[in-house]
Amino acid sequence: MREINRYDKSREYYERASKVIPSGVYGHQGPAEGCFVPVEAFPFFSEKAQGSYFWDVDGNRFIDYMCAYGPNILGYNDPDVDAAAAEQRKKGDCITAPSTKMIEFAELMVDTVASADWAFFAKNGNDVTTLSIMAARAYTKRKKIVFFKGYYHGVSPWTQKLDYPGIIEEDVCNNIYIPWNDSDALGEVFDKYKGEIAAVISQPYMHGNFKDNVLPAGGFWQRVRKLCDDNDTVLIIDDVRAGFRLDIAGSDHYFGFEADMICFCKALANGYNVSALCGKDFLKNTISGMTFTGSYWLSAVPFAAGIACVTKMREMDIAKVLDEKGKKLRDGLVGAAKSHGFDLRVTGAPSLFYLRIADDPTLSLHQRWVAECVKRGVYFTNHHNHFINAALSDEDIAETVQVANEAFEVVKKN
Amino acid sequence: MREINRYDKSREYYERASKVIPSGVYGHQGPAEGCFVPVEAFPFFSEKAQGSYFWDVDGNRFIDYMCAYGPNILGYNDPDVDAAAAEQRKKGDCITAPSTKMIEFAELMVDTVASADWAFFAKNGNDVTTLSIMAARAYTKRKKIVFFKGYYHGVSPWTQKLDYPGIIEEDVCNNIYIPWNDSDALGEVFDKYKGEIAAVISQPYMHGNFKDNVLPAGGFWQRVRKLCDDNDTVLIIDDVRAGFRLDIAGSDHYFGFEADMICFCKALANGYNVSALCGKDFLKNTISGMTFTGSYWLSAVPFAAGIACVTKMREMDIAKVLDEKGKKLRDGLVGAAKSHGFDLRVTGAPSLFYLRIADDPTLSLHQRWVAECVKRGVYFTNHHNHFINAALSDEDIAETVQVANEAFEVVKKN
Repeated sequence: MREINRYDKSREYYERASKVIPSGVYGHQGPAEGCFVPVEAFPFFSEKAQGSYFWDVDGNRFIDYMCAYGPNILGYNDPDVDAAAAEQRKKGDCITAPSTKMIEFAELMVDTVASADWAFFAKNGNDVTTLSIMAARAYTKRKKIVFFKGYYHGVSPWTQKLDYPGIIEEDVCNNIYIPWNDSDALGEVFDKYKGEIAAVISQPYMHGNFKDNVLPAGGFWQRVRKLCDDNDTVLIIDDVRAGFRLDIAGSDHYFGFEADMICFCKALANGYNVSALCGKDFLKNTISGMTFTGSYWLSAVPFAAGIACVTKMREMDIAKVLDEKGKKLRDGLVGAAKSHGFDLRVTGAPSLFYLRIADDPTLSLHQRWVAECVKRGVYFTNHHNHFINAALSDEDIAETVQVANEAFEVVKKN
Repeated sequence: MREINRYDKSREYYERASKVIPSGVYGHQGPAEGCFVPVEAFPFFSEKAQGSYFWDVDGNRFIDYMCAYGPNILGYNDPDVDAAAAEQRKKGDCITAPSTKMIEFAELMVDTVASADWAFFAKNGNDVTTLSIMAARAYTKRKKIVFFKGYYHGVSPWTQKLDYPGIIEEDVCNNIYIPWNDSDALGEVFDKYKGEIAAVISQPYMHGNFKDNVLPAGGFWQRVRKLCDDNDTVLIIDDVRAGFRLDIAGSDHYFGFEADMICFCKALANGYNVSALCGKDFLKNTISGMTFTGSYWLSAVPFAAGIACVTKMREMDIAKVLDEKGKKLRDGLVGAAKSHGFDLRVTGAPSLFYLRIADDPTLSLHQRWVAECVKRGVYFTNHHNHFINAALSDEDIAETVQVANEAFEVVKKN
């Protein structure tokens, strides 16, 4: 059996962090959140990363299936992206006037993303989802927004739930929530709120947390597209999480339709700090009329990195590469589960797979299995989709399946 | 007389940009905004930057008084900050688990900022102003927010005006606007909305656009602090723009009071992409209870850069250095104006000076003077405060005053 990780230094650092940082570590990584990661089995702090691995402060190496929650798509410290960024850094980064790298990057996005007539760059996925909602309201002069239950579109008040700390009724009173894949329900709310719906915002498929991920039903997107057209409503696709892992031309393209606006972040520049809103010509003037900016939004280094990343992803046919790796991993994991009598459900796109051991409504069996994997150097998470990167090798996949086997064995014994 | 800049390449690039980017260039730099920069006189795209200068794509060099709208505080490409960032980049940047650089940076902020018991890092100033408002509402279970007219706290819906594109009544119906420096007005709204006001949010002094900047009246902040205390209301200081240029310990400290939460961005890491919310112990649990994050928020390179930047700022007594340079420049500019019969008003802190030629309510005289400066390689802006950086030399200041003289001469002739 493989050696079990120890996390002594991580625990010490966490104590130190807790003194000066609310909850010590925030976001998905925080034990405060307590659900996405198997708390007692996971490292709190990283020391370094390379390719498909990261090392924690205790020296443990992990085959990393979270990829920094998406940004790592080519492999950590990709030499081509890093070289382009370093070259730009010599000249400058955050300067009073923008670099022409911004133009090159916008041209590349328009050339790459099927539904894009223009590109606007920001820093967070949340920046561009928020801009898309404001633009839809400005364009339609309407208030209401339709969401599919299970969505995640960032952390701004307009996209939170009423029971979230600090959210008030006014933040969300124009939100309409309908079930995923239910185009009849969408038709009904269009009838009920005739002429009032500014936008429908959605991920390309339902890759929510705590539930098996669900691809769009046949014809779903085509019907949604038609309903939006018929009701002069803006269709916004939030491709922040899935972007480039399904289709370099956009996940809307993958599912055979065109969004009016599409939001990118995460994998856009292999970890360099940039997001993008792309959209159709009819919305360009609306965006032009909005002063929407931030301190670092014109920085040139992330643009240079983004150009290198998108170019490389195009050249290597990234979605195909990740799909193949994802399928290989899926087959290995499902086989390992089966050989121990477990039914492991692998849902969503193979490049963004979601894992759940079936026949356990408490999810505790699944959590224990994930914990045993993490303790043996395979970084899975409990109830969030995973991410494949291009540096993941066949050897990494074989090692992962071996670890999964050991973990199933441990779980079976207990 | 000095040579007048030509901007042929900038204009060509702008044409190209307009095809794929809404308004071509967005933010303050965009000609669409059309007011902060003297459009016909200014360059659209930069080629490189170093110290106190940037060069545009036509090869023109500018003594840069905008400093990327604040981030450049030590000088572009500061060797110490860049070395710390490069060192961290070799290990990794945006990784699944955060680096311990996050802890070190939080400890440094708590040690540096007088009112800080904890630090939380994000990417935009807007991220942390938004978090502060949500936290204040969560803590107080109240809705209303008091703003001082002329404020700027980012681009989120809650801080925009109702006439801004895409803003709906619900976004701003809990906002109360009162005049700057008017603590009586604040007392009145506290009486009127007893037990309803969650927070007062303010810049440390009124450094708004289109108007002479205004420092706090004597005793103003002390009275505001007391009113907030008496009404159990959270006092939030937005130090995104002024931060570190008045006082390394926070602009609240400079004016002799303590904020409950204070927002930093811009100068925090000399252009590397990070922002921070610092606050008092009584709010730590509230922040801990909120899942508020983004794709790149745990990235280690900006933390390493921020540690180097704050450390260097402390060592060199940055606020004093910038204040001295700002005063030298102010005296030179006012003298140059006077010698041509103009009354140049220099308001706000010397390190963040705002310029206006008096006796011209149309502001057109001022705009023409700024344009003549920019065309001669001194990058001023029309109706926004400027920023001093530590690389600005006495020779730069002397050259600036000489250019200002020439520009006054041209304006006087016309």
